Amino acid sequence: MTMVDRVPGAPDAEVATNHVHRARRLGIDTGQEPVVYLHRDSIVCRSEGFGSEIRLWVRRGDRAILATLNVITGSLLAPDEAGFSEAAWSLLAPRADDTVEFAHPLPLDSLSHVRAKIYGRRMDGAAINAVVTDIAAGRYSDIHLSSFLTACAGDRLDRQELVDLTRAMVTVGDQLRWTHPRVFDKHSAGGLPGNRTTMIVVPIAAALGLVMPKTSSRAITSPAGTADAMETLAPVALDRDALQRVVDREGGCIVWGGAANLSPADDVMIRVERPLDLDSPGQLVASVLSKKVAVGATHVLIDVPVGPTAKLRTLAEAEAVSDALRDVGGALGLEVLPVITDGTQPVGRRVGPALEARDVLAVLRGEPDAPQDLRERALLLAGYLLELAGAAPAGAGQALARSALDDGRAWRKFQAICAAQGGMREPPVARFTRPVEGTAPGRVSAIDNRRLARVAKLAGAPGDPAAGLELHVRVGESVAPGQPLFTVHAQASGALDYALAYAARAGDIVRIEPLR
Amino acid sequence: MTMVDRVPGAPDAEVATNHVHRARRLGIDTGQEPVVYLHRDSIVCRSEGFGSEIRLWVRRGDRAILATLNVITGSLLAPDEAGFSEAAWSLLAPRADDTVEFAHPLPLDSLSHVRAKIYGRRMDGAAINAVVTDIAAGRYSDIHLSSFLTACAGDRLDRQELVDLTRAMVTVGDQLRWTHPRVFDKHSAGGLPGNRTTMIVVPIAAALGLVMPKTSSRAITSPAGTADAMETLAPVALDRDALQRVVDREGGCIVWGGAANLSPADDVMIRVERPLDLDSPGQLVASVLSKKVAVGATHVLIDVPVGPTAKLRTLAEAEAVSDALRDVGGALGLEVLPVITDGTQPVGRRVGPALEARDVLAVLRGEPDAPQDLRERALLLAGYLLELAGAAPAGAGQALARSALDDGRAWRKFQAICAAQGGMREPPVARFTRPVEGTAPGRVSAIDNRRLARVAKLAGAPGDPAAGLELHVRVGESVAPGQPLFTVHAQASGALDYALAYAARAGDIVRIEPLR
Repeated sequence: MTMVDRVPGAPDAEVATNHVHRARRLGIDTGQEPVVYLHRDSIVCRSEGFGSEIRLWVRRGDRAILATLNVITGSLLAPDEAGFSEAAWSLLAPRADDTVEFAHPLPLDSLSHVRAKIYGRRMDGAAINAVVTDIAAGRYSDIHLSSFLTACAGDRLDRQELVDLTRAMVTVGDQLRWTHPRVFDKHSAGGLPGNRTTMIVVPIAAALGLVMPKTSSRAITSPAGTADAMETLAPVALDRDALQRVVDREGGCIVWGGAANLSPADDVMIRVERPLDLDSPGQLVASVLSKKVAVGATHVLIDVPVGPTAKLRTLAEAEAVSDALRDVGGALGLEVLPVITDGTQPVGRRVGPALEARDVLAVLRGEPDAPQDLRERALLLAGYLLELAGAAPAGAGQALARSALDDGRAWRKFQAICAAQGGMREPPVARFTRPVEGTAPGRVSAIDNRRLARVAKLAGAPGDPAAGLELHVRVGESVAPGQPLFTVHAQASGALDYALAYAARAGDIVRIEPLR
Repeated sequence: MTMVDRVPGAPDAEVATNHVHRARRLGIDTGQEPVVYLHRDSIVCRSEGFGSEIRLWVRRGDRAILATLNVITGSLLAPDEAGFSEAAWSLLAPRADDTVEFAHPLPLDSLSHVRAKIYGRRMDGAAINAVVTDIAAGRYSDIHLSSFLTACAGDRLDRQELVDLTRAMVTVGDQLRWTHPRVFDKHSAGGLPGNRTTMIVVPIAAALGLVMPKTSSRAITSPAGTADAMETLAPVALDRDALQRVVDREGGCIVWGGAANLSPADDVMIRVERPLDLDSPGQLVASVLSKKVAVGATHVLIDVPVGPTAKLRTLAEAEAVSDALRDVGGALGLEVLPVITDGTQPVGRRVGPALEARDVLAVLRGEPDAPQDLRERALLLAGYLLELAGAAPAGAGQALARSALDDGRAWRKFQAICAAQGGMREPPVARFTRPVEGTAPGRVSAIDNRRLARVAKLAGAPGDPAAGLELHVRVGESVAPGQPLFTVHAQASGALDYALAYAARAGDIVRIEPLR
């Protein structure tokens, strides 16, 4: 989280009130938005004219946060008390009865740039910097963030705006520095349930001598991000120093990027992208590349899956995003290699954090029932990466990757990475499972990635790591009536019911054509 | 407020949980967004897998509301209790210890239309209807509303989309029916502080026999809406029946539109337009005309002020909006007469609800120091309206209006309307006032409407009805050093300081050019 202002105090609070309140933890979980509660008869509310739905600075010693005000009209608080939501409490970290002070924030001048963008004007570097600085400092409310993301979505950022946005997102966070001249990274442009190749590519690459400090995000609109899946096997919330130690020892890591303060504005924007279910190409380019520049990468392989229900639906879209990634990366000193891949159906058999981790383990351990599509996809990407690194001549990368996977080097490296990150563990298993069956005989003609992902999310993924689903069929296979098409996994019976009800209502998530 | 579902129960909640909780009013004012609080160990949270930041249906008897969930981790609630924010409590209206039930809402399918719009596709009538229906039913969170408004802003709606949006906004609310064949209305496209002509035009028109059921909005981005100013003189929150009675008796009324459930989606959208400070031309057309159609008007005069710091900055913009108003109105059976007016400086001398009401009273009473610009502007508009109605031949409207104002008929009608609305009262006076003085001699060359409005808002308007400012100079006048340019009025000393600090920082709100 990046709501804490780095500079001690609240430099952009113009009028300090100096009215002191006693801090009380109210035990209210308001999600990521910090909320502070004050009685309507408090000195602050009376003398400052605060109303509801406004934001204000709260300061304790040299720490200050921007929080949303809720006014208490009942007896929950005394007039000299200040209540804190869980997010606000953990950001400001007071002890009970510590005193806190309040101040008005300055008007948010950078919103004028957002309005100009809405009205079709372009933003220059200074405007973008001002917006991103305010976002990273937590000054944008959800309403402001939603408007900024919407105004930039749908190809409304030109190439230079994208470069400026990406650079601004790097600048407002920390950056990792490496002594190695070449540092590798990979990313998937997403939209494909179960596409967990990172957890296979990194150990292959690291086993073959590449330096690969991989930071991943949690799910934005998908049922699981790589960080969510990896977390079911080992700790991922490593800070910068811990990350550096793991990479120094093992050559690679697979951690959550959020704890390292790399591109913190991206982490803030994610909290709005999720409810909007919006992850536009421009935002994708800025989000991906800002993390890569911040992590200190010099060479980046990007998996760009294309399919009618993947994030990128047509080859033309995928090529446009690839070009943008290459151009914007180049402008920022990154060599980017986009690899357009098949995105017509989910990868592997399982969807959801723990379930996807099981697919990865099966591939790394060389188990006979390991999903071949996940294995082959990981080898394809690892091959390109090895060629990009010069570790294998053109055309020989895949064979080299295959040897490191088949002879157990990748699996040993994965275990070593897990141990270095804090210790390997078993992924959790869901309490409830129920199959969804086909009703008529036929052949599977298509699988709807988006609706399948929604079923997994309604079942509880990624919040419940054990939740998700297992696919039992693939495109082209024949099915009989009553044959299970997929099994839903959930930790709560209500979530299971909800996912199944949606699956029944949505219809044709697995499309079956009659046999002729 | 329109969060209450009209159909008893929650028809779009697919999975009822039937877990009963006791209702508790927590006395937390969360603004307009209804919030429900449940303990993390409650049956609902445990068995349904609810997390924070989700929305759910809460039902009591035949009433149901959609509320945002905050999870209680402390001892504020027992596991079988359900806490309510003030907004949620007043919408659901339980008694203490009433039992309530919870259910998951269906996924918000209409968001796919918003996403399509973001990506540049147009919305057909069915898509727009689905979005507006969900908005009026309170199914859109602030994040969703912000995205929809941003996606539609900046001329991204074509003429047919605007017609469909306006019609949908009418359809989801109530509509007034009149036996009179011709029903008149007026509106100002806004952006001009102090432009309170409605409160003068309505009594003139009604005194001369026109039927004019005027509903006004509260301020969106300005320091006062007509409803805010009128409310300092008489009750304005009249329901449909009361409105009808006032108009039957006096021929006209000046009430707040929100209580009559006319175009309720518009009222929901306003809560996001305000923090975004965004009020785009397309949204303006749909907002204005949906209210006019819903109120049963047949002829509408629209004041379109133009000036460098008014909402519409150029004549071209004003003409584009005028064309859109005429076209969209015509498609919906309304005769619309846009009148482009001077919007280069504030109207009248005072800005803020009670202060603007005082300017209006001075004009109606014919006081010698009444602001002439407000008086002349109201007469111009009343004249056009009387000509539109056929009450005066072309070119003779203003003279007719002037006679009704000068001989006291308009003032008597205004008092009668106030009495019919519930009784006339004195507007409040602010506790704190402080002048802002000029520093150098010169001539006033410009007044910045936007910054001036911001000073009034920072002083507390429109939340504090007495807050705002009084202007002491007009464009073209000479000023001496130390001469007061404007006086800030506030109810709280903190708000006064804040407004003055902004005025000092913003500089040149009243621009003074050296005398030559």
